[in-house]
Formats: sequence, C-alpha cells, structure tokens
Amino acid sequence: MTFEEARAQFPVLERYAYLNAGTNGPLARATVEAITEWNQRDLEQGRFGKAYFDQILALRDRAREELARVLGVAPENVALVSSTTNACNVVLAGLGLTADDEIVTTDVEHFGLLGPLLASPAKVRVARVLDAPADQAPRLVTEQITSRTKLIAVSHVSWVTGNSLSPSEISRPPGIPILVDGAQTAGACPTQAVEFDFYTVSGQKWVCGPDSTGALYVRDPELLRVALPTYMSQSAYDIDDSFTPKPGAPRFDSVWYAPGTLAGLLAALEAAPEWRYERIRELAAYCRGRLIEVGREIVTAPDQAGLISFVARGEAAEEAARLYEAGVVVRDVPGTSWLRVSCGWWTSEEDVERLLGAL
Amino acid sequence: MTFEEARAQFPVLERYAYLNAGTNGPLARATVEAITEWNQRDLEQGRFGKAYFDQILALRDRAREELARVLGVAPENVALVSSTTNACNVVLAGLGLTADDEIVTTDVEHFGLLGPLLASPAKVRVARVLDAPADQAPRLVTEQITSRTKLIAVSHVSWVTGNSLSPSEISRPPGIPILVDGAQTAGACPTQAVEFDFYTVSGQKWVCGPDSTGALYVRDPELLRVALPTYMSQSAYDIDDSFTPKPGAPRFDSVWYAPGTLAGLLAALEAAPEWRYERIRELAAYCRGRLIEVGREIVTAPDQAGLISFVARGEAAEEAARLYEAGVVVRDVPGTSWLRVSCGWWTSEEDVERLLGAL
Repeated sequence: MTFEEARAQFPVLERYAYLNAGTNGPLARATVEAITEWNQRDLEQGRFGKAYFDQILALRDRAREELARVLGVAPENVALVSSTTNACNVVLAGLGLTADDEIVTTDVEHFGLLGPLLASPAKVRVARVLDAPADQAPRLVTEQITSRTKLIAVSHVSWVTGNSLSPSEISRPPGIPILVDGAQTAGACPTQAVEFDFYTVSGQKWVCGPDSTGALYVRDPELLRVALPTYMSQSAYDIDDSFTPKPGAPRFDSVWYAPGTLAGLLAALEAAPEWRYERIRELAAYCRGRLIEVGREIVTAPDQAGLISFVARGEAAEEAARLYEAGVVVRDVPGTSWLRVSCGWWTSEEDVERLLGAL
Repeated sequence: MTFEEARAQFPVLERYAYLNAGTNGPLARATVEAITEWNQRDLEQGRFGKAYFDQILALRDRAREELARVLGVAPENVALVSSTTNACNVVLAGLGLTADDEIVTTDVEHFGLLGPLLASPAKVRVARVLDAPADQAPRLVTEQITSRTKLIAVSHVSWVTGNSLSPSEISRPPGIPILVDGAQTAGACPTQAVEFDFYTVSGQKWVCGPDSTGALYVRDPELLRVALPTYMSQSAYDIDDSFTPKPGAPRFDSVWYAPGTLAGLLAALEAAPEWRYERIRELAAYCRGRLIEVGREIVTAPDQAGLISFVARGEAAEEAARLYEAGVVVRDVPGTSWLRVSCGWWTSEEDVERLLGAL
C-alpha cells in the first residue's frame, strides 16, 4: 500500500488537517461500510440464529487475534472491552486492593486510568513527572514504590505531554504488577505488552476503530479475579456455588459488540499498512522540527510516539477552536496552556504545513 | 400509529415470524437509518469538534429521558450502561459486600445478574421458584431473607419461565436494597422502577435498540459508591485525593456510545406506539391460549409479560432449529425441555399461527 492509497481511505482528510487521533482516529471508508453492511443484515434478517451467533463469535476471535498482533502477544491473553477505562476497572476490581495497599501512578494520567485508581480503597502515590525531563519518569515512578505498593499504574505515553514514561525501565520489586494504559501507543508505535502484567488498547484512537471498542492484555489470567463477569466470562456456572471462568483472558470480556462494530474494528485493523509505525515516527519528527522552526516551544521530547504537545500563544482552548474553524483539528490539553498534535500514519507534510499556516 | 404502520417499521417481520425479542428485539428501519446517517457524518467530518461533542451530550440527555420514561422515573436517576450485566456489576461493585453478607436471589435468573452475584464475596441464597406456582415467588424469596441479607437481587420477569417474580410483593425489612433485572420487562410492560432501589434495562431487547445499550435506575445515587468510574462519572478530580461524582445517577454512566448508537436507540424508543403494552398483553394471551388449544403444556402463568414458555416435544434445541428453518424464530431454554416465545407489540396473530403451523 502506498502512502497515497493508505491516506485515500479516510474521507475526513479531504476536508481537514485531521491531527487528533489521540482523541478519536479518522474512520476509513471500509470501516463504515463494514458496519453498515452488518446493520443492514441485522435489519433484514434479525439478530438471531445459530449461524448468526457463530459468525459473531468468529469475528470476536479474529478481532482478538488482530488486537493481539498490535500488542505483540497471544490472542488467549487478550480480552475484549469497551474502553481503556473499562479495562482499568476490570483490573482494579479484580485485584481487590485494600486501604493498607498503595498504588503508584503519575501526574500525567488520563481519568480513564486515574478514575479507577481513585475509586480503589488503596492509597494512590503520585510521581511528579510533568515538570521533569522525559527520561527521568521511570526513576521518579520507582522512587514512589514502598513495601505497601501493590500496583504500578501508568500510561505508556502520556496524553498530556506526549512523552513516553518508559514503563519497562521502572525498577519493580518482584511480584508487583504493572498496569499500562496503552491508549496513546497501541496502534501508534511498536508495542511489546508481554513486558507488562496488564496493557490496554483504546479501539477508537490510533487503531481507528468504532467507538466503545478496546482490549485488555492480561499476562497471567489465573492471577486476576474475575470481579466483573459477563456471560462471555464463563464456561459453566452453578447457581449454588460459583462459575468456571473460560480459559485465558476471554474470561475478562466485558462487552458484547454488535457484529457491525466487530466487522468495523476488523476493517480498521486491516486497513493499517506495514510501514505505519515508521511513518508516524517520521511525521512526528517532521512536525516537531517545523514547530521549532516557526518558534514554538515544544513540550514533547524527541522520538516519542505520535503526539506532539506545544505551548499555545494565548488561551489554548481558544486557539484550538480558531484552528478548527480554519480546518485544522488539534486539541488543547486541559489544565495547561498547551496544544496537542496527533501525527498518524495517514498524516501528510501538507497537513503539518496547514497547521503552521493557521497558527 | 396503527398496528399495520407500527409493524411495517420492521423488515425482519416480512421474512420471519420473529418471536424472540427476549434475546434481541427486531430493528426498525428508522433505527438503522439513524445509525448509518451518523456513521456517514463521522466518516466525512471526523469524530471531533465542540459542536460534535455537544450534540452527543444532548443525545445522551435525550436517551436518558426516554429510558426514564420507560421506567416511570426521573432522568437524573438513570445511568447509561452497556448491558444489564454491566448495570448489575456497577451495583455489586458499588455495594462492596463482604463474606459476612448474604444476597437473596432465585433459581430462574440469567447469568447477567447471577454472574455479578457469584463474583461477589457475599454468600448467595437461592429461593427455589422454578417448580413453584408463579404467585409463590415473593413468599419464597422472602423466606430466604436473614439478618445477614444485604441485597435482594431478582429479575422482574424470568427469562426462563416468563413468570413475574412480583418483586414489589417481597417483604423486605427496612434498609435492605433490591436490585431488579428488568431485561424482560423494560419496554415489554408498564414498569414503575421507583418501587425498587436498582432496576436495569437491556436496550437491545424489548426496547429494540442497538446492541451494547442499556440503563440502570438508581433510586438514591448518593448511597451507592462509584466503584467503576468513567470520565462521564466525575465533575472534578484531584489527582492526590479523589474525584467529585456528577450529581445523580449519571455518575454511574459506564460507556461512551457512538453517536449513531445513541441516535439509533432514540429512534427505537420513539418508534414504540402508545398502545404497546396493551398489545403485548393481548398477544401473549392469544399465543398462550392457542398453544393450549393445540395441546401444548404451558410453563408461563396467565397475564405475565411478553414471554410464553412451553414444553417442547423432543429435544428443545432441535425443535427451535427446525422452527428457524421454517421461518419461525423462537428459542429453547437451556437446561430445560422448553421453548420460549416472545410476543412483541409488533407481533401479529398470523405470526402465532405460523408458529403453530410449524410446530
């Protein structure tokens, strides 16, 4: 697939310099067509029949395989969920921490991770990485670990700074699991989730899937309690006793997707070219370099993932709104004076120039 | 809206005697058109912009209002969730029961309710209503209540027997909350959820909405902990402390629906005629009467909701598969020798006759 062919899949790029996959990725024509085709089938044939459910189960298997490929893991370690938030709630509920326990996180996390941590009875210790050099993050996180730490929970790349927290470099004492929020990495850069205990995927961001899709990697499904079971979690149940979880991570499946949603997610996963990570890296470097050339102060360190945050001139939300009016889609970062650009594998140098022109 | 007009909304009825809203309701043309229209907009305009998010939030408000209307409650007591299972997990996680506590349920529950109960550390006491006369259910449930009971959790109408468990007639000591699984009632019969503490809606069944939609009624949101927060749950958060839940039940919102899903759900809710509950009652009585006339043994008592279960001749799953081949969609009830017919407000006497002809 050439760059032009890859890019031509996304009609929104004909209208906008769409630089916000960190919120929602662009949708490919094939993704929406797959959804529409299934919805039409559901409309005419009804949502029932053995063949119907068998097809959906086969689509779930395929989606699990493709999401596993994104994470560099085995499909049996992947659960299908509705969001990164949902995935984090599955992990926190399953760990069942108490008020005697501690969780280590950072000050650059999204509420999708932070909310489940704050809802836990455990004490949350916050490493202050926001104002530190990017390469200090693993050290700052490590410093917050105590004998009470029962979980480390950080994003791989921060939605705020665009910087990697290099979670594989955190010095973890044996037996302390790590939950990694992969919302800004899965689909944006090569990911080896096997290094971690839990890793999340947001289906609607860099993977360009439908809303309300996502995945959770679980390295050792037997070690996490199934605290939020669904019909998909069990292979058998006894009303007077308990249920037998399915083998592997499918026991943590949290949502029954419409078949159109599954087919759309698969189409999105299959639309991504081989060269996507290289291109994101190249384009992010280009974007960062050009912003520096025009005198912008950059928040994001070199060579991170697809996000580049930089300092706005004036009120960031107002600048983002003005850019949107000019056909350039970026977002402001709440609580800061920053704008954030998302560089996708579909992004062109012309998109970046259009941003610079509108700034 | 006449019966013919109401029925004509559902293309699947042109093909099948579709008698399985208890699994998935039929989809109306307007429902799928609303989904497709929004997906096309997302494809071309991107999933971003203040106007975009404002529209989605307005759709969420409207969906909440319409679902509240189905339950006879105020919108501020309704949370948007992905399923009845999800709703039950929200309640059980929020109650935080311990191994010293007991939950009372019955032997005719779906895993969507039972799974969350079994995952709780509390002991589950099971009232045996399956083989008892329908009107004995409240007494049998009441008998299982002890000084350790911290929750009563039952379906309003059982997916197995089609019988109402008459949850409002259970004698509950003050302070013991009741969670009612409304999967087979919300949209199928008049519902006054205000009588209960928690009540669930499955959006894809009698309401005829898209998959992965639903609602949870919470009578007193302040009394249930927000154990599984999402971005939609909070009005503010402090990374070093906690988050401030939104006022009311929206703090329990568990899922960000695609706008197409919301618009489709709204179209489905608006497609239902005023006379829907009367018609379901009438048609269920007709179906039950006709099955008796042709010599079938009926499981479901008179005057319940839209489900009629009856005894198969031979293996129920095989009979259901044979009926499906003949264009009649009913389901078998696992673990029994029963078939289950769902009578919707769109069901005609001819659909019932087609079932009888195929039996």
